[in-house]
Order: sequence, then structure tokens, then C-alpha cells
Amino acid sequence: MNESGPLDGVVVIDMTRVLAGPLCTLLLADLGARVIKIEAPGTGDDSRQFGPFVNGRSAYFAALNRGKESIALDLKNKTDRAVFERLLGRADVLVENFRAGAMERLGYGWEALHGRFPRLIYAAASGFGHTGPYAGRAAYDVIAQAMGGVMSITGQPGGPPTRVGTSIGDITAALFAAIGTLAALAHRHESGVGMKVDISMLDCQVAILENAITRYLATGEVPGPLGARHPTIAPFEVFEAGDGPIVIAAANDNLFAKLCAALGLPALARDSRFRDNDQRSRNVVALKREIDAALGPRSKSEWLAILTEAGVPCGPINNIAEVLADPQVLARNMLVSVEDPVMGRQRMPGNPIKLSAFLDPPTRPPAPELDADRDRILAELADDMASP
Amino acid sequence: MNESGPLDGVVVIDMTRVLAGPLCTLLLADLGARVIKIEAPGTGDDSRQFGPFVNGRSAYFAALNRGKESIALDLKNKTDRAVFERLLGRADVLVENFRAGAMERLGYGWEALHGRFPRLIYAAASGFGHTGPYAGRAAYDVIAQAMGGVMSITGQPGGPPTRVGTSIGDITAALFAAIGTLAALAHRHESGVGMKVDISMLDCQVAILENAITRYLATGEVPGPLGARHPTIAPFEVFEAGDGPIVIAAANDNLFAKLCAALGLPALARDSRFRDNDQRSRNVVALKREIDAALGPRSKSEWLAILTEAGVPCGPINNIAEVLADPQVLARNMLVSVEDPVMGRQRMPGNPIKLSAFLDPPTRPPAPELDADRDRILAELADDMASP
Repeated sequence: MNESGPLDGVVVIDMTRVLAGPLCTLLLADLGARVIKIEAPGTGDDSRQFGPFVNGRSAYFAALNRGKESIALDLKNKTDRAVFERLLGRADVLVENFRAGAMERLGYGWEALHGRFPRLIYAAASGFGHTGPYAGRAAYDVIAQAMGGVMSITGQPGGPPTRVGTSIGDITAALFAAIGTLAALAHRHESGVGMKVDISMLDCQVAILENAITRYLATGEVPGPLGARHPTIAPFEVFEAGDGPIVIAAANDNLFAKLCAALGLPALARDSRFRDNDQRSRNVVALKREIDAALGPRSKSEWLAILTEAGVPCGPINNIAEVLADPQVLARNMLVSVEDPVMGRQRMPGNPIKLSAFLDPPTRPPAPELDADRDRILAELADDMASP
Repeated sequence: MNESGPLDGVVVIDMTRVLAGPLCTLLLADLGARVIKIEAPGTGDDSRQFGPFVNGRSAYFAALNRGKESIALDLKNKTDRAVFERLLGRADVLVENFRAGAMERLGYGWEALHGRFPRLIYAAASGFGHTGPYAGRAAYDVIAQAMGGVMSITGQPGGPPTRVGTSIGDITAALFAAIGTLAALAHRHESGVGMKVDISMLDCQVAILENAITRYLATGEVPGPLGARHPTIAPFEVFEAGDGPIVIAAANDNLFAKLCAALGLPALARDSRFRDNDQRSRNVVALKREIDAALGPRSKSEWLAILTEAGVPCGPINNIAEVLADPQVLARNMLVSVEDPVMGRQRMPGNPIKLSAFLDPPTRPPAPELDADRDRILAELADDMASP
């Protein structure tokens, strides 16, 4: 089903729904793994009911599940459980994003799975992980963002708590789950044995707090939101050209001198208030005032051309339409197409992992209809039984 | 040097600086790889000069480079180049985050490396990737966040562009680089040959836009910032208890009914304005007004207890101090300790990838002083030369 990739031959059983789990298995599919979604009969992955819809089909589901196969199995039914277990016997990886304890209630907790399928790698992504006092609780993205601290450092100073506009609670859990799965796969090449990978959305939020934790522990000051500013680097934020905002990041003295020259303000680079990053950070408001004043007479596009020519890192603040029209985004094949039999041609984000050994095809296979691959999968299992 | 992990035996040559590259190799080190930093003599990784400082040493550098080794090499010096090449001959992976073209200027571009070290995996993380019209340009986190679109969907409606408060431009590049590296390692087990992994910060931002792209392509409407709200799920945002805000995410009808019951407003679940997620999303302002009014008479902690007991996903909006004191964060060992010979005991984020087959030690080895491991590394190379 998939285009070839480095994970060719790896079989992933996908018991995931909505975002964190499906994004993890999408990454594995994009890398060449065969991903077989096990879905609840009748309804399937909850996100099949999430808008926006195109010709009655969920564009949300379609983007997260392209290139996967689907079989509907009722894991409380004996016959379906037998099919599921034969699939596990052929699989390398099982990924799920249920609440902690759900797999145990189905009889497929890690101990049971590992006893029967010792080579199987089992990756679980949940709100709080499978251990600790909150293990049984459900979480969604905004819960992880709020409890994990990123909302407390995102937004305008003194303003209301602000959610990151994309679901980084789910997305980072997907990425760490993929890393853990691939590390477990590397280890299985040596040991022959699988392991469990237990990913918590809350843990992942802590892992991405970066210098906020370091600053708090070193200084005792609790970091707050800074609008568009970086907490410790200046200039590194939004500035105002004549017709709107752009971003400029002159993160060292050399780049700052280039910026001052390009702005026609060479004296600024020698101003004692701005002589090094430490001084620039202390006088960041005055610095922004000087730069904004210098930018005022010209437009965003004029300044981006001038600064780029001068080698000063800068860029526009793109909206989603502008992102998808950006020549670099298009040149990097970050918008791929899928021919869906019901929805027609759909565009969606591509795979950001560009590999020298594999093509990065601009068209990809569609997401499956619910239970679309049942007959072929059952036939393969029957062949297995027939062969010695 | 490292605690044992699934990547035990994997040797990573680390030519990275500051954040995206060092975070990638930190993940690999946390998973058991041996990571050898190649640093510029005299200065080393730029972030050794980044605050905050503890006893004159960078806490920023210390957190991102724990458990790694260091050797200072001048890659324009013939003797040092010979050492570097002998290290590459023993290595599995090379990671760098220079601007595109920098490795070619050193004579270590992918073609040259692959010719001499065919098993070596080469992972590059850069602002715009190694292809396309912007390939030669430098970028920093805020440039990637601005050009990649996340700033256009983060912040308050009608408010100024808002940077995500942590460097997700760098961080997502680190995570995708780690995934690509591990996928390449899996493929090398089959093929015996390494490949190049080319990661662009801008590509990674596009890859995490999630439903914003889907919504735009399906509807033609350009998504904007929504404060703390989710674009398509309600209730899923910040609400006001008597003494401050909490988050509640009742993402389906069943959870919404539980929420209404816990709020003492069972009629709300039958209100036609709120009868399904689609209606709730259309009437999200009215819904928030009803819920805020119901929450007013009790405190945050009272409501969190009531809602948690009722099985409704909810949580506090933690600041960084509160995150680091959270019982779940502590139970999951997400705050580890390092005994630094100069800084003393330092705490820093742990590894969110919890594996059944390996311990997750609460104390970790410190970051290296510049060139700290020179003698031992040179002695190992000499042993190699001496043995047949």
C-alpha cells in the first residue's frame, strides 16, 4: 500500500483514534511501514465523524490516515479476537492511545501481550502515562497544554492564558511515541525481544519546556508569557514595517551589526545599551523602539529583501494560505496530494523527513474506508495457516 | 558514559550547536547511544555562553548536553581532520545543524561522506533544509514559527501575532531528526548502507499545523487565533472558577452530559443549542457563558475535584513552578538530577520515553567540559590502530 521507505517490511497494528495515535502511525506509514488500523465495527476511528467534511467524508480523518489499511474487529467477539491475535503474531509493532487500563480490560495488557508475542513492540500514548497518581484519567490536548505549563508562557504579557494554536499536546506525544517505537525496533535487532513504550502527553509537555525550566530553577523567577519575544535573545521578535509586522532574529553580535548596517543605523551597534546580547535583552523595549522606527518608512517586502540580502535572518508572518503558497514549502514537497475515490483530489501536509535513499512522492495513497481491507487481510492470514 | 538503553552500542558524532541539534542528540543519548560532541577549540558550542549561569557555567548548555562526551577539533587543521575521520569510521550516526552548504565547505558534504563511510547515517537539521530556493538562508526559531504559520493561529482573536512560548521551531526539528535517524538505522540493519536525513525547521512547522491546513483547504477560510479555544471541539477551553481559570475538555456528547450533571445543569445537555459538538461549536460563546456562570460559586480546586470525580477531563493551568511540583510529573521522573562538578546538583527535564526494558534513572551524568574526553577518545583510536 505504501510507497517504499526505510521501514519497508515493518508491520504496525494500529488501534489508535483521533490525533496522537494516528499521527504516530502516519509517520511510520510515511516511512514505509505497513499500518493496519483495527477499528470498531460500525463507527470506526471517532475522527471519521470530525469535520470539515468533503462529499460527506471527514477531511480530518483523511489527512491523518492516508496510506493505512482498515479492518473492523469487535474485540469482545471471540472470532474477531482470534483474527486480531493472528495479526499480532505477524506484526512488529502495536500502537494504541486508549486511556490507561483499557488494554488490560480487553485482555491485551503488556504482560499478556509480551508473554504471547515476545517480539512485539507495544507503544501506548495516553494523557498521563500508565503509571503515577493520574494514570487512570483521560486528557485531551488543552488539558496537557494547561497542566504542562506551555499555556503559562504563551500569550501577551498580562493577558489571558493562551493555547498553542495547534494541538502540540497530541503532536509531541505522537513524535515521542514514534521515537520510542523506532528505538525499541533497533534494540530488537540485537535482543530479539520487544518492549513497551509508555508515552504521556503531560511528560512530553515537560520535555519541550526547554529554557523555561532552566531559567526557573536557576533564578527562582516563574516565567510568564512574552508575546512574540524570546526570553533571553534580542533582537528576536516581531517588528513593524510600514505596512505590517515581520520577524527578525539577530541572535549574535555579528548578525546584530549586519542588521544595524542594513537598517542604516550603524551607530546602534556601538550603542552601549545594545553592545551584547545581555545588554540588548535588558534594553529590549528601547531596542524594539529603535528598530521599529527604522523599519517604518519601507514595506514588509522591501525590508525582507534588504535584510535577506544582508544575511540577517528574517521572515514574513504567514497565515495558513500564505504558508501553503510559499515557494520553499512547495519546493520541499510539503503539500502532497491524495486521490480519494469519494472526496476527489485532496491536498494535505507531506512528510518532513527527507531521505536520500527514498523518493518523496508528491501523490500518496488515500485513507481507507472503514473495513476496506478485510477480505485481503483475512486471505493473507489464511495463506499463513495453509503454508507450513 | 550513558545509562544503558535501547541504543546501547550506537555511536553518534555530534557537530551540533544551541538547540535543534543538541536536543536531537540528547534524545539519542537518553536512549543509550554514545554521543561525542565535536566542538570548536576555545569556544565550543555557542550555548556554553548562554545564560542563565550557575557558578559561571551555562545551565542552558548543561540541560541540553548531559551525558555527552566532548572533544575539541579544528576541522581546518590537518591533524584534527584525521582524528575526526577516524571517529567517523567508528560512528553510526553524524548529526549537524549548520546552515546548508557548511559541511560541503569543510569537505564533509553527504556525497563525500557517503563515499568514504558508506554505513554512516547523516542527519542534518537546518532552517529551510538542503534543497529549495531558501536552502542557503539561516533561520532561528521565531523565523520558523512565523513563516510556518503557527504564529498566525496562536494568540487572542484580533490581537498581535504571538510566538509559542517554547522554541517549537527547534524542538520539532529535533524530534523529526531523531525519527529520521532511527528509521535510517532500521533500514541499515537490512541494507548495510547509511542515508542522509535532511530536516527543515520550516517543513516541520507545516507538518504540525494539523487541522488548520485541513480546514483551510476544505473551506477556503483562513484560520486565525482563538485564544484558548479549540477550533472545532466545544467545550474545550479555559473557563472561570470563582478564584481563577481552569481548563475543561468535554470532547463528546457523553462527556458533555457528565459535565452538565457535575455542574448541576442537567438541562444544558438537552438544550438544542448544545445538543451535539457541531451545535456546541456554533454556540461556543453562549456555552462558555453558561459554564462560567455555573463555575463561579466554587473555587478552582473544588471544581477540579468534582469534575475529576465525575470523569470529566479537566485540569489546572500550571505555571512552571507548579508543573515541577505536580505529583504526576514527579512520579513519572520527569525532573531528573545531575551532579555537576562546578554547578553542584542541577535539576532538569527527564526523558518522556518510558521503556519497559530499561531503567529510567533519576540521576544522570553531567554535560562535559569543553574537550573533557580528548585523552580517552584519542587513546581509543590508538587502540583501534594497534589492533589487527
